[in-house]
Amino acid sequence: MLQEVHIDYRLSEKEKNSMTRITTDKNLVTHINVFTVSPENQQQLVDVLVEAAQSTIRKLPGYISNNVHKSLDGTKVTTYAQWRSQADFEAMLQSPETAPQLQALSQLVTSFEPHLYEVVFVDEAVAE
Amino acid sequence: MLQEVHIDYRLSEKEKNSMTRITTDKNLVTHINVFTVSPENQQQLVDVLVEAAQSTIRKLPGYISNNVHKSLDGTKVTTYAQWRSQADFEAMLQSPETAPQLQALSQLVTSFEPHLYEVVFVDEAVAE
Repeated sequence: MLQEVHIDYRLSEKEKNSMTRITTDKNLVTHINVFTVSPENQQQLVDVLVEAAQSTIRKLPGYISNNVHKSLDGTKVTTYAQWRSQADFEAMLQSPETAPQLQALSQLVTSFEPHLYEVVFVDEAVAE
Repeated sequence: MLQEVHIDYRLSEKEKNSMTRITTDKNLVTHINVFTVSPENQQQLVDVLVEAAQSTIRKLPGYISNNVHKSLDGTKVTTYAQWRSQADFEAMLQSPETAPQLQALSQLVTSFEPHLYEVVFVDEAVAE
């Protein structure tokens, strides 16, 4: 018994730019990559990831979203990205434009653990 | 120069339940936990996480959202959760209700890597 509801949002420009939704929608694949860094390199790693996102990644076919997270303990940076398909994601890795960026990343980090995922469960707090 | 725009959404019940938004909003903390599992245990780990989410986690103070991701290669399960504050997150870990669930989880996994994060960059594709 699906019931449709009608919600009005008023979004600022800032909010419009932060609309990545985690969803079980099957028409996307999620790439989560956990980078391990020395705390003194954490901000530089963030800067490299943001620069790559803005100059290259966002222009590639199949790109949906990309989000960068900085751990409070200084030792991790984690990216959460959505792509239209696994093929689009793999084409990004093979792109000549991303090669120098991947090289720059690899010199900053101790290790990284990239995996493709499907979202199998979503839940959010019920408004009180 | 913030410009407000007005967007109407019509959401089904299913969509209403998948509205986790990744945002640089400072009034939340993000917990990303990467569990490493044998592929034969991956689905059982998902089941334990979903059961814990539904029976316990979602009722705790400061809970905002919780999402479970299954890696396509079978070796990882990653949770992406949002809490109102670090204190709320830590109270969840100390809750007597979550103790048996954490115990069940630890027996299923090879290792896990939990970290608290702030979101420092968000980007999404511009609609064509």
